[in-house]
Amino acid sequence: MSVFSFEILEQIKGGRARLGRIKTRRGDIETPYFVPVATLGSVRALGYDDLAALGTKCTLANTYHLHLQPGDELINKLGGLHKFMGFSGPIFTDSGGFQAFSLGFGREHNISKIGSIFPHGRAADGRAAEKVSEEDHKRKNGKANLTKITDEGISFKSLHDGRWHFLDAKSSMKIQSNLESDIIMAFDECTSPLSDYDYTQRAMQRTHEWAGQSLQYHDKSQALYGIIQGGWFEDLRKESTDCISSMPFDGIAIGGSLGHSKQDMHQVLDWVVPKLDLRPRHLLGIGEIDDIFECVERGIDTFDCVSPTRIARRGSLFISPQSGGGPDNKFRINIKSAIYRDDEKPIDPNCRCPTCRVYSRAYLRHLYVSRELTYFRMASIHNLHFMFHLMEEIRESIRDGTFIGLKKKWLQIA
Amino acid sequence: MSVFSFEILEQIKGGRARLGRIKTRRGDIETPYFVPVATLGSVRALGYDDLAALGTKCTLANTYHLHLQPGDELINKLGGLHKFMGFSGPIFTDSGGFQAFSLGFGREHNISKIGSIFPHGRAADGRAAEKVSEEDHKRKNGKANLTKITDEGISFKSLHDGRWHFLDAKSSMKIQSNLESDIIMAFDECTSPLSDYDYTQRAMQRTHEWAGQSLQYHDKSQALYGIIQGGWFEDLRKESTDCISSMPFDGIAIGGSLGHSKQDMHQVLDWVVPKLDLRPRHLLGIGEIDDIFECVERGIDTFDCVSPTRIARRGSLFISPQSGGGPDNKFRINIKSAIYRDDEKPIDPNCRCPTCRVYSRAYLRHLYVSRELTYFRMASIHNLHFMFHLMEEIRESIRDGTFIGLKKKWLQIA
Repeated sequence: MSVFSFEILEQIKGGRARLGRIKTRRGDIETPYFVPVATLGSVRALGYDDLAALGTKCTLANTYHLHLQPGDELINKLGGLHKFMGFSGPIFTDSGGFQAFSLGFGREHNISKIGSIFPHGRAADGRAAEKVSEEDHKRKNGKANLTKITDEGISFKSLHDGRWHFLDAKSSMKIQSNLESDIIMAFDECTSPLSDYDYTQRAMQRTHEWAGQSLQYHDKSQALYGIIQGGWFEDLRKESTDCISSMPFDGIAIGGSLGHSKQDMHQVLDWVVPKLDLRPRHLLGIGEIDDIFECVERGIDTFDCVSPTRIARRGSLFISPQSGGGPDNKFRINIKSAIYRDDEKPIDPNCRCPTCRVYSRAYLRHLYVSRELTYFRMASIHNLHFMFHLMEEIRESIRDGTFIGLKKKWLQIA
Repeated sequence: MSVFSFEILEQIKGGRARLGRIKTRRGDIETPYFVPVATLGSVRALGYDDLAALGTKCTLANTYHLHLQPGDELINKLGGLHKFMGFSGPIFTDSGGFQAFSLGFGREHNISKIGSIFPHGRAADGRAAEKVSEEDHKRKNGKANLTKITDEGISFKSLHDGRWHFLDAKSSMKIQSNLESDIIMAFDECTSPLSDYDYTQRAMQRTHEWAGQSLQYHDKSQALYGIIQGGWFEDLRKESTDCISSMPFDGIAIGGSLGHSKQDMHQVLDWVVPKLDLRPRHLLGIGEIDDIFECVERGIDTFDCVSPTRIARRGSLFISPQSGGGPDNKFRINIKSAIYRDDEKPIDPNCRCPTCRVYSRAYLRHLYVSRELTYFRMASIHNLHFMFHLMEEIRESIRDGTFIGLKKKWLQIA
């Protein structure tokens, strides 16, 4: 049996936002919580000491990527992922199913889980520019795609050596067991916002099959979350919610596709969450600042996303509303801008992170434009500290009953 | 007047190695000391907090590079280099004269200060493959070279914008004053191991002229080191030593070229050091482990070198003799080797650095082959910690009278 429980400490009045505590064999996570991504067993640019100094409670690593490099069996032989990466808190792993999308259609069509973020996903009516049927999927399989999907599982063409690797529920559970992560995900197929109804339905049915197999095969010392699919089709999402939540998972994750806009994503949550029971709810791969507020309000407990560290590496650094952050600038300054050339202020004058305590915007801009490696760490530290601090404020506001006020202040809603 | 003094605490019996203490306005440096290089105002991949945790006493930044990016006037406006880079200890700056070599002949002929490191500097007799005269210098000026050198100063073609920048003793002193570093270098011309006698003599004479001008123009709140040149020609090196040490510098630096082999470098020091008085002695740009022992033995107090952090980024990590390090492997393992794929040991089982306390060779190899940014920091921390620890052992051995034994143990001399 897994040492795993979830307790709801506070539920907002007349709403779905809630304060909770996930207990795992490697420590507790107060929710809502933002889970930083350690794709290959490191949160990019940060060391184990940085994660500790930031007070990082948990991380999420990628099953498929670690399976390829350095290999889950090797990690197991070396004592598991915690020992390997020097992180003693709870680790989530995904199931590899997301890469069916990200290395398949996502890669080919240059779209994200919310299709409209990239031009290819947009049409005149704000919906998909094209629909992709089962036939299209088949036709493209084995060509530009790096994935082949059948009812049995997913074949991936490795970007390392060009060889094909096959994943199914059983092998995904085995890999996650080898990694010795604490919270694992059922094997699923993440569809594209471009997939049509029939294809999305087929993929959802596969995902439900695989959910049952994951329950059967998973390492019982690990907590297992089921993943709800169904794209942005109301009846499919509701069907998937009923199916997954009827199974004895430890927690429930909501996977993509989440439609073509943030509004679509909110709509999907409004279909799904009211049908869920009290188990913890994880929203996979989402984590911009407005998303956090909107999805916490809709009852999400945990989020994982590469965004805060990825945008940091590309020059985007978070600022709070007191320092001029808002929905218009996505709570970011872009440090490469010449206006910061002689700016003595820290990134965010209200931030107490190690970067802001010592470095000016001018210095960080200098490091950025000089491509100095020091930049990547200090920028990532700031953005993660910012996220953790934001989550703390959100938890505090749920405790105090001031969450809606906090959301309105941040998102500038009158 | 600069707040600067040097005290010799212990002198080895019958030899030149010595224990000393440099006092500066920003703190003391116990010598022999290895000074890490912060070319553009950051020790590559490390933050101010890393430098503090490593107990870094001082760093050396590059005048010419900071002059171009972000600009010394900007740094001055922002409160000086210490504030800019968040380092409160003493900072050395070079004079820009080294770039006359590194961006000029060094770049064109692909050689280092010790010519024989690269094939181009080698000939059948182990000496220079070619000699370069004044005429050759002139002919090449403005072609492949990025430098033009006259008795007035050095023009550099910027790698940033292609524009020419002129440096002379006066402007070098002005830039170093703007940077507000603590120990500055007189303006000099660093020649190539390929330069012939006549050219090296001419460059040395210029360097002596510029030494006088540097004394005249430098910011009197900064400690100024004169630089001895003269290539690997005995009479020139001795003439330069007499000239520079007759001037009222706070310390003496020894610049390149240092010949075509490590033996040549030792020979140069044996010509120079016996003629010096008790002022502190800095060897510019040298710092492999065998060099440290050989040059400390020959009376050098401080070294700066990019090598420990540069080789770390390229996969070479230091190991001590107890862990198999020696002259044959240059005290290094190369972490990219497949033999470390499943090696659970830390880089050096005898090391107590933050990297070795937690990470295995297997994990570091995984980060290295995956090009994960985390690698660069953790590898640099190890190599710098290793150098600092080695210097501490060396200082201890001078105090104890066991330096020669320590050197023999490390360099495996019977």
